[in-house]
Amino acid sequence: MGPGPSNINARVARALSAPLIGHLDPYFLEVMDEVVQMLRLVFQTKNRLTIPISGTGSAGMEAAFVNFIEPGDKAIIGINGLFGQRMADICQRLGAKVIAVEADWGRIVEPGSLTRALKAHADARVLAVVHAETSTGAWQPLAELGEACARSETLFLVDAVTSLAGCLVKVDEWRIDICYSGTQKCLSVPPGLAPLTVSDKAVQVLAGRKSKVSSWYLDLGLIMKYWGKERVYHHTGPVSMIYALYEGLRLVLEEGLEERFARHRWVAELLEERLNSLGFVYYAQPGYRLPMLNAVKPPKNLDIHHTRKRLLSQYNVELGGGLGPLKDKIWRIGLMGESATKENVDYLAAALAEIMNG
Amino acid sequence: MGPGPSNINARVARALSAPLIGHLDPYFLEVMDEVVQMLRLVFQTKNRLTIPISGTGSAGMEAAFVNFIEPGDKAIIGINGLFGQRMADICQRLGAKVIAVEADWGRIVEPGSLTRALKAHADARVLAVVHAETSTGAWQPLAELGEACARSETLFLVDAVTSLAGCLVKVDEWRIDICYSGTQKCLSVPPGLAPLTVSDKAVQVLAGRKSKVSSWYLDLGLIMKYWGKERVYHHTGPVSMIYALYEGLRLVLEEGLEERFARHRWVAELLEERLNSLGFVYYAQPGYRLPMLNAVKPPKNLDIHHTRKRLLSQYNVELGGGLGPLKDKIWRIGLMGESATKENVDYLAAALAEIMNG
Repeated sequence: MGPGPSNINARVARALSAPLIGHLDPYFLEVMDEVVQMLRLVFQTKNRLTIPISGTGSAGMEAAFVNFIEPGDKAIIGINGLFGQRMADICQRLGAKVIAVEADWGRIVEPGSLTRALKAHADARVLAVVHAETSTGAWQPLAELGEACARSETLFLVDAVTSLAGCLVKVDEWRIDICYSGTQKCLSVPPGLAPLTVSDKAVQVLAGRKSKVSSWYLDLGLIMKYWGKERVYHHTGPVSMIYALYEGLRLVLEEGLEERFARHRWVAELLEERLNSLGFVYYAQPGYRLPMLNAVKPPKNLDIHHTRKRLLSQYNVELGGGLGPLKDKIWRIGLMGESATKENVDYLAAALAEIMNG
Repeated sequence: MGPGPSNINARVARALSAPLIGHLDPYFLEVMDEVVQMLRLVFQTKNRLTIPISGTGSAGMEAAFVNFIEPGDKAIIGINGLFGQRMADICQRLGAKVIAVEADWGRIVEPGSLTRALKAHADARVLAVVHAETSTGAWQPLAELGEACARSETLFLVDAVTSLAGCLVKVDEWRIDICYSGTQKCLSVPPGLAPLTVSDKAVQVLAGRKSKVSSWYLDLGLIMKYWGKERVYHHTGPVSMIYALYEGLRLVLEEGLEERFARHRWVAELLEERLNSLGFVYYAQPGYRLPMLNAVKPPKNLDIHHTRKRLLSQYNVELGGGLGPLKDKIWRIGLMGESATKENVDYLAAALAEIMNG
């Protein structure tokens, strides 16, 4: 019940341990095609360029910027937590001029502030936000930003690492141009792959680059030739992890996206009820709290550091600690994918009650 | 029996399917420490900075260059196949001036040519070669190059993707400064991780950089803080793949490095005997042929394309095709890790004899 990796289903575990085959084997190419089709359903997109990047969610973030940013480009970035900061760091390394639109940790970045920045910097290459800020639990609204970018040359870039398959992510309807995720959150597949989808508008920007992409490994022009019809060898596909993603996506679609989102929602409501009654206070801005990542301040009579250790050693429950300025101030409780169950909530609440009364 | 991924042991399959835990869980940190210790034994090094990069072998190649090359640096690169070409491509993207020392595909790059290039470009940042050129089967000699680099400021960079754990790779004795591998070859772990080791001399170069590393994901300065004592979160470690590497390394060390190298050698000799008697011709330079990657030209009466397909569909045997200028000209037969067995050689030879006799 930390901020990811979440638990995996037995079917995903079996897929992981299946015999290896070559990354250009005809059967494996079929598996790849089905992964792409299922990813499109989960991202709610028709984007041709929809693939898993061979690295963790952070590799997805890097791929999302390195392919579209050239030195000197402007990048408008919403920063209200660790992952917005990371976006800015990556952009600076690529020689971009970062226009930071900041908000306090725990709050959303006001869409109005971002659209004003877009008006002031109409030549920005990207406007980037984190949908689900895993460091704070804030749930960023997106639709208005997508509309604004769609009326401009700017690409709308969204980090959906923690949100995808846990709450609505409508890539096409919300006019998102570049969207990436990680496998180890609500998809409930081990960490190691970063699903990514890219709009035609963004593909045109990629095609019009003046310079080569600085990363060979994450160069989408090359990666597309392996995942597309040409099947040109790029790097050795992480076969076992692709098997696992295949099975994980099947489980998501068997459950149904709406049903899965509803499950995440009501399990999170149940947690909130239990934690409120134990004296916990939620950290993120009211009305914008993620169901799958609950940032909470324990009551003062509970040793925040010691209790988390005890939950792990004595109760076998993992919670996440705070990052950056929230270190030792909050817990981050994940309810993601296979881990988002009433059983888990009940068990955690019972353990906390036992510790607090003991 | 292709150029990787090789087969995995049942113990590695079981490790892959073990329950997930957090990438900062105390138990997982212990697993990480043991992985590092075992990697040092396999690389035959005492290098403190020895870790698996969270990506495939090609991510290892990119990490090896992106951390040490700054724009304008000179890179001397031995090019005698696809992977040397890839090194040059990566360096050019990083703004390096590439000094290519070329040889025909299938031949080694003469050490004398490389040391002459080093004399002519004493200010070169790296001298890089591919130990086991997977596209041709050539086995590059290293010791003389390491000596030459050790007497200069230049870092000696070696691609050991296909060689590590299949033949001698003595990082310290051969004075290699930067050495990376992939898990899916002679380590017999699925593709997805790239073991990397870096000498103190290279760590000093990293510390003395004028510019930030252009890749955030592969920035060794940040990654070291997660793998080192600080345990600062960087990216979510690919937990299941690390489990698999842990078990794969245990298997390598239980067998013993010398014993494992000897097995690769005699199984390759057996294959050569069988293939010679069937009229196959080896492609790589005599005296410099890898045991784990056998590039061979089939006899003229055998349809190179059709036979390889038939081996897969009818006999369940995967072989690799040629890459680049060798497309449709050779087969690449892998004898790597778990796949390097007499049974496999006998079965392939029997299948080929059956096909050739109609």
